[in-house]
Amino acid sequence: MGEFELLAALRERLPTAGPRLVLGSGDDAAITVPGGAVATSVDALVEGVHFRRETASLRQIGRKALSTALSDLAAMGAEAGEAYIVLGAPEGMSEAELLELGEGMAAVAGETGTAIAGGDLTRAPVLTLAVTVTGYAARAEDFVTRGGARPGNALVVTGELGGAAAGLVLIEEPGLAAAAFGADATDLATFDRGKQARPRDLDLVSADALRRRQLDPTPLLAAGHALAEAGATAMIDVSDGLAGDANHVAVASDALLTIDADALPIAPGVAAIAAAADRDPLELAASGGEDYELFAALPPDAVVAAQRALVALGMPLTVIGQVESAGIAGPRAELRRRGGEALPSRGFDQLRPRKPR
Amino acid sequence: MGEFELLAALRERLPTAGPRLVLGSGDDAAITVPGGAVATSVDALVEGVHFRRETASLRQIGRKALSTALSDLAAMGAEAGEAYIVLGAPEGMSEAELLELGEGMAAVAGETGTAIAGGDLTRAPVLTLAVTVTGYAARAEDFVTRGGARPGNALVVTGELGGAAAGLVLIEEPGLAAAAFGADATDLATFDRGKQARPRDLDLVSADALRRRQLDPTPLLAAGHALAEAGATAMIDVSDGLAGDANHVAVASDALLTIDADALPIAPGVAAIAAAADRDPLELAASGGEDYELFAALPPDAVVAAQRALVALGMPLTVIGQVESAGIAGPRAELRRRGGEALPSRGFDQLRPRKPR
Repeated sequence: MGEFELLAALRERLPTAGPRLVLGSGDDAAITVPGGAVATSVDALVEGVHFRRETASLRQIGRKALSTALSDLAAMGAEAGEAYIVLGAPEGMSEAELLELGEGMAAVAGETGTAIAGGDLTRAPVLTLAVTVTGYAARAEDFVTRGGARPGNALVVTGELGGAAAGLVLIEEPGLAAAAFGADATDLATFDRGKQARPRDLDLVSADALRRRQLDPTPLLAAGHALAEAGATAMIDVSDGLAGDANHVAVASDALLTIDADALPIAPGVAAIAAAADRDPLELAASGGEDYELFAALPPDAVVAAQRALVALGMPLTVIGQVESAGIAGPRAELRRRGGEALPSRGFDQLRPRKPR
Repeated sequence: MGEFELLAALRERLPTAGPRLVLGSGDDAAITVPGGAVATSVDALVEGVHFRRETASLRQIGRKALSTALSDLAAMGAEAGEAYIVLGAPEGMSEAELLELGEGMAAVAGETGTAIAGGDLTRAPVLTLAVTVTGYAARAEDFVTRGGARPGNALVVTGELGGAAAGLVLIEEPGLAAAAFGADATDLATFDRGKQARPRDLDLVSADALRRRQLDPTPLLAAGHALAEAGATAMIDVSDGLAGDANHVAVASDALLTIDADALPIAPGVAAIAAAADRDPLELAASGGEDYELFAALPPDAVVAAQRALVALGMPLTVIGQVESAGIAGPRAELRRRGGEALPSRGFDQLRPRKPR
């Protein structure tokens, strides 16, 4: 198969129709007629930096590439529109493997109503994905940016935190995972599902959920839209870690965000992983990143309606803090334990050298 | 500098305002209000596949990445809008180098009225650029696709062909370049500008133009818009090589495109390079690729007006063939010499292993 045949085979597997898409992939450019406002975001995933093929299937990698890009649109409260995919394939990669990757993307595109409207296929030294996504709203002011949080607003977060970071430990450090199970590595294969777990022990259902949280995050498009409808004044997806992402909102909104660290909703199993890894579960929840939950500011009188809307979508919305004036110390997010101790506000810097995941 | 500081420094150097751009880089997504139809295209450049840092400066690489992406919009007849840049930087790359790359992009953005509206910065094993560009027209049908060529249409091409391929020979094969100059490599430094050149000899002005054509192509946005206004029924930019690109138009339009090979406008100096490399100048002009000229189909009565419009932009528009019914042999582009000999219709396949450029 040459480039053009492979592109044709990929196109066959991908959802390529959308309500605003007049002409999809195959010409010099795709043509859309938005009829309103457009939100556009780009995201890259590079083998050895963002994922390892030893621990994630190509289908999972394809899913995650599109899901994490769409998560940025969720954080705008946007309706998903189109995706444009740059795929850099290493020399040894077979056409079957490329199609498996495409099928992962196709699945997420189907689940979210995203049309794959274009792309570029090229050689690259390692598997490289760059995804551009577009989302829609009737008017520009319907989108929720990071910059609208106002003093008196409540701070909320969807779902549960720390799961993706704990999942990464499970995937990358099997020794620690075994300790979290209360068993050594050789016992894992015969681990007794019925056995009474000690409080800090991990159960297999939670472990599986944590791994999936890391390998296959869900873009919370419906939740983002519901929060926008409920009147969210600022929103961001938790990709770098809650502390770092809250700081982005603080700076963009020129506000002080005070977050009650003890109120953070922590995913089941995170405490067991943290204990085994000799880390604070709050560190995983506040700085681990990649949970792709949504963190938002809401007027206090909008919180109950927002919570009802999210329960209808099957997920909790937890109040974790409030917005105050920045004051002379300047805009920042502060995580405090109830004792008063401030936690270090640590983000996650893509350019800082770190272990490949 | 961390990722966020570097992004801020890059943003300072880039044009970030556009008439349809409500919110640029720095939030979860950029916000635009198109008010009409949008053309979107993505393009990737990978070190070792599309360029080599030994032969192109970072400024040139930055320029070429944005220019080649915008060339696809030129081929739609679109007005340039925004660009979104994924930049994968290898470990050893300094911030000064990243900023030089950004300055190259900024220059092209400024020249073309493109706003840099977003991006993603990540580590990658080699320098990797993925550029998404958006362009505009009032209505979707104002864009010129590849699929509208009709029997009886004239086929035209802007400017001159073969220059980028000849430039690549000059850059990558200094020995051949010396032969084309009619001198050996050691004489090049003292080459006498006033010397009478033999007919096949290359002059320094042409050589410089050929190198620039390869390293720094120009997206023909104004020409593309003029051709659309003149009534072009199909259009494509010459990136893979005229023969291959004409074939894309033939297939999309379900037509036979007959091209008079002897009518192709060949850039000055290409004949000298071809002679030195023992290749047919027509091969460089028809299959070399990367000239980023525009190839279009026009109703015959629209040709003169189109030529006048392009002369006003400082470039020739040459009639090189015509559109016929596909017939039972199916859609295809045929290049014929006046003697009747058909040339092999060769494209350029990104996935075929080839020398890095």
